[in-house]
Amino acid sequence: MSNSRAELRMVELPMVGLSTAEPEGAPCCPPLVSAELSEADAVRMAAMFKALGDPVRLRLFSKVASHEGGEACVCDIQDVGVSQPTVSHHLKKLREAGLLSSERRGTWVYYRVAPSVLAAMAALLDLNR
Amino acid sequence: MSNSRAELRMVELPMVGLSTAEPEGAPCCPPLVSAELSEADAVRMAAMFKALGDPVRLRLFSKVASHEGGEACVCDIQDVGVSQPTVSHHLKKLREAGLLSSERRGTWVYYRVAPSVLAAMAALLDLNR
Repeated sequence: MSNSRAELRMVELPMVGLSTAEPEGAPCCPPLVSAELSEADAVRMAAMFKALGDPVRLRLFSKVASHEGGEACVCDIQDVGVSQPTVSHHLKKLREAGLLSSERRGTWVYYRVAPSVLAAMAALLDLNR
Repeated sequence: MSNSRAELRMVELPMVGLSTAEPEGAPCCPPLVSAELSEADAVRMAAMFKALGDPVRLRLFSKVASHEGGEACVCDIQDVGVSQPTVSHHLKKLREAGLLSSERRGTWVYYRVAPSVLAAMAALLDLNR
């Protein structure tokens, strides 16, 4: 009796799906120069590149990334020549692509770069086979 | 007489535009985490990220990049589930963004990754300040 319960637990454990601490979409794929990208990985990684494929979005991203402590309040990154709703739209896109994480503290939302996603993109572009 | 001809040649030479070996748009910018990107640099780099922001284009790029010798004939990279004109369109976009160079040899066009452009993109995503 107790034996079969133990067995049951052992079967169930792998299904809990605790998985990794990495955010979804993070570490992926060997360098592009070393192996062909699968269709699924291409879909996933293209979304990240696309998120940086807009000049205003790339500037906003660089403002967050280069800000003291690697974190910026949305109030710190307004001066890119577009309206506040446009800034919010771009920050949302960057968040959806997994490039930024956000946290509300009091009145303001703070943004932070997701290092593992950036590292995955850089690894993909690595020239060493 | 022969002197002024020599002078003429010397004046004309710099206009041939031999310029550098680097493709236009290549090495750029310190890592995003270390300094804010200027507007002009953001326009330039966003175009490169945008070029990889399409799954089919990213797969075609990976096929060229991972091909033996870092070079692929257009005849080697057809199997991505899109028509040949679509393949040509994407390869043209990658070439225009400076990510691929191309050369016609006989019947076929050969594509090659532009390493300095890839390196510039990877450098931008580097996490070390």
